[in-house]
Amino acid sequence: MALIVQKYGGTSVGDVDRIREVANHVARTRAAGNEVVVVVSAMGKFTDDLILLAHDVSSTRPAREMDMLLTAGERISMSLMSMALGAIGVKSSSFTGSQAGIITDTSHERAKILEIRPDRIREALDEGLVPVVAGFQGVSTERDITTLGRGGSDVTAAALAAALKADVCEIYTDVAGVFSADPRVVTKAHRLDKVSFDEMLEIASTGGRVLMLRSVEFARRHHVPMHVRSSFTWEPGTWIVEEDPTMEEAIVSAITDDTSEAKITVAGVPDRPGVAATLFRELANDDINVDMIVQNTSAYNLADISFTVAKTELKAAMAVCEKVQKEIHAASVTSDDSIGRVTLVGAGMKSSPGVTALMFETLYKDNINIEMISTSSIRISCVLRADKVADAVRLLHTAFGLDGE
Amino acid sequence: MALIVQKYGGTSVGDVDRIREVANHVARTRAAGNEVVVVVSAMGKFTDDLILLAHDVSSTRPAREMDMLLTAGERISMSLMSMALGAIGVKSSSFTGSQAGIITDTSHERAKILEIRPDRIREALDEGLVPVVAGFQGVSTERDITTLGRGGSDVTAAALAAALKADVCEIYTDVAGVFSADPRVVTKAHRLDKVSFDEMLEIASTGGRVLMLRSVEFARRHHVPMHVRSSFTWEPGTWIVEEDPTMEEAIVSAITDDTSEAKITVAGVPDRPGVAATLFRELANDDINVDMIVQNTSAYNLADISFTVAKTELKAAMAVCEKVQKEIHAASVTSDDSIGRVTLVGAGMKSSPGVTALMFETLYKDNINIEMISTSSIRISCVLRADKVADAVRLLHTAFGLDGE
Repeated sequence: MALIVQKYGGTSVGDVDRIREVANHVARTRAAGNEVVVVVSAMGKFTDDLILLAHDVSSTRPAREMDMLLTAGERISMSLMSMALGAIGVKSSSFTGSQAGIITDTSHERAKILEIRPDRIREALDEGLVPVVAGFQGVSTERDITTLGRGGSDVTAAALAAALKADVCEIYTDVAGVFSADPRVVTKAHRLDKVSFDEMLEIASTGGRVLMLRSVEFARRHHVPMHVRSSFTWEPGTWIVEEDPTMEEAIVSAITDDTSEAKITVAGVPDRPGVAATLFRELANDDINVDMIVQNTSAYNLADISFTVAKTELKAAMAVCEKVQKEIHAASVTSDDSIGRVTLVGAGMKSSPGVTALMFETLYKDNINIEMISTSSIRISCVLRADKVADAVRLLHTAFGLDGE
Repeated sequence: MALIVQKYGGTSVGDVDRIREVANHVARTRAAGNEVVVVVSAMGKFTDDLILLAHDVSSTRPAREMDMLLTAGERISMSLMSMALGAIGVKSSSFTGSQAGIITDTSHERAKILEIRPDRIREALDEGLVPVVAGFQGVSTERDITTLGRGGSDVTAAALAAALKADVCEIYTDVAGVFSADPRVVTKAHRLDKVSFDEMLEIASTGGRVLMLRSVEFARRHHVPMHVRSSFTWEPGTWIVEEDPTMEEAIVSAITDDTSEAKITVAGVPDRPGVAATLFRELANDDINVDMIVQNTSAYNLADISFTVAKTELKAAMAVCEKVQKEIHAASVTSDDSIGRVTLVGAGMKSSPGVTALMFETLYKDNINIEMISTSSIRISCVLRADKVADAVRLLHTAFGLDGE
């Protein structure tokens, strides 16, 4: 008998029919002899509607009150789910984040989980019930209601799976799994049966939209296999598992793309210690997430530092850079919001020379210019003009032999 | 500086504009130098919508899950209210029933408050905040979410006012207070400035729809004055206070009417001890609330027992009576759902002979037949044909000198 944590996102429980379909699948999983814990998001766009309502009612939206407001959504979906299970003879009980023992820090709207005390969930399982747990929410050490930020329900599922020592954490969504590239860009993209945690982390952090980074990190740290699959077709999806050292790894598993970022270049900076530290400390102090960073030094002991930030944070980031410019004696600060990034991810890359060369040759053959390069042992990212990104992904998908039937 | 608990019902916080208006009133109350605790219901018909959704999703709606579902409503209204207060510079924090320390028994959907531990509310007040508390909900001794049943938000307000030793519990609603009769029936009905707790209990239990019995009982027991008033005009409403022994009391304060009940008559019952006990014990076992009970004995040592129940419970009550009929050797069981009740309430009645006589004469003059009579020291109720109720109320309102200008 396996213990399975099943997480259903907003589209999976978007209306009454969908809730009933999910209940049927939970019943099937139970009937196959498994213990099941269900984690649900709020129904469809309900959370977005609440946010609009808050904007309507007030210009002041303290994070504590936003958390109180938004957690109403899962409360509705989880109790309805529990009733839907009851209707088909599956005994269940719903639990808020607080009741499920999701203890977080006090950072409202993006709380971090400090501890899971799943006693009530364990008890419910022991009584033969299916616990239905509110995703996305917890209770802080100050006894206030908190939310876990974007992708929070995935984090709840992974954390509960870890605490309960579940056999698998299933993430149900509206796509069939993780693909070799975005199917909207590459029609020949195919679903991956299996990726390693490390690959998934790179895919998630470079534009793969299926899973949020935090939940993958959680599952990796606690050795909980994840299974991303569709709640519309119910077919098997993509497993995310520990690397299997006995297995030959794909050199390139997936190609991701991301056009949500902009580039900032701080040019003509004296090449001495502490300059980058000053710049990125100031950005961090303003809560700006910096992604790719590239620095190179010219002949005159002057360095250019380029980095990418989310387009939504470009204005704030530019303000910080312009403030710091004088302090670090930079010649200029410029930005560019017409960039895009293409990334190759593959665990086999580290033992395969020539991947970089093939990537660059492929882009060069089509006259696509590379503006920034950044690599890890299992990833190569190139920044290009945004309007070349789709072409680049398709060319690389073919060049690395990923095109399906 | 007074401590005021203000409760706002569903229509008072029905939309974003209403929430803002309420926030303004809270700000005014604060600016006048008072401490304020706000208790809110769910917005408008939101709770009804959730109930429809539950009916849609499942034929099985366990009370525990219904409570989880319905408490989402106050969560939304209270956080929005707190934001609206913030927008006009009033610092506040919202609290769930659980956070406000409303500890209940484990009877889902109609939990009783066992204890109030308002430590967090007290702390918030001491920090200069306006606590905004979810009405209608609590947490059980088993740590499950509970709701307090119909009128539950009034109960929350009265209970919090008692626990905090508030100076007044203000109940804001869509009417201007308690009236001498239902203004939809009697155009000349006038708002009462003041009624005693005993009168209010009688008014509430005989058809006055403004306040639920339980909240009045709570306030009376803990000596918390209540003030029922309009959140649309903000004018002073009706105070519900302890009887003032130095004051002359109105003989008749209000006339209520109620056509929501039906009558059951169990006729030809042997007049011996234990018969009524058997009948009403069986009804109680089936959770049927019996209201007026009248019994009289005929010449042949046979008794007729008549009583009223809510029309919604008539079918269930008849089933019990027909089951018990043989056991108590009753000749017949009949029901009548075309009855109505008219009630005079007045604290001065107990020292004024002649009220009953004037009531009966007034009805007789208009040829209205009285089918059942029941009295307490400050109340007289008569059961009539339902279609005579409105006429009876109007005639009595005039006869007892209650018609306003």
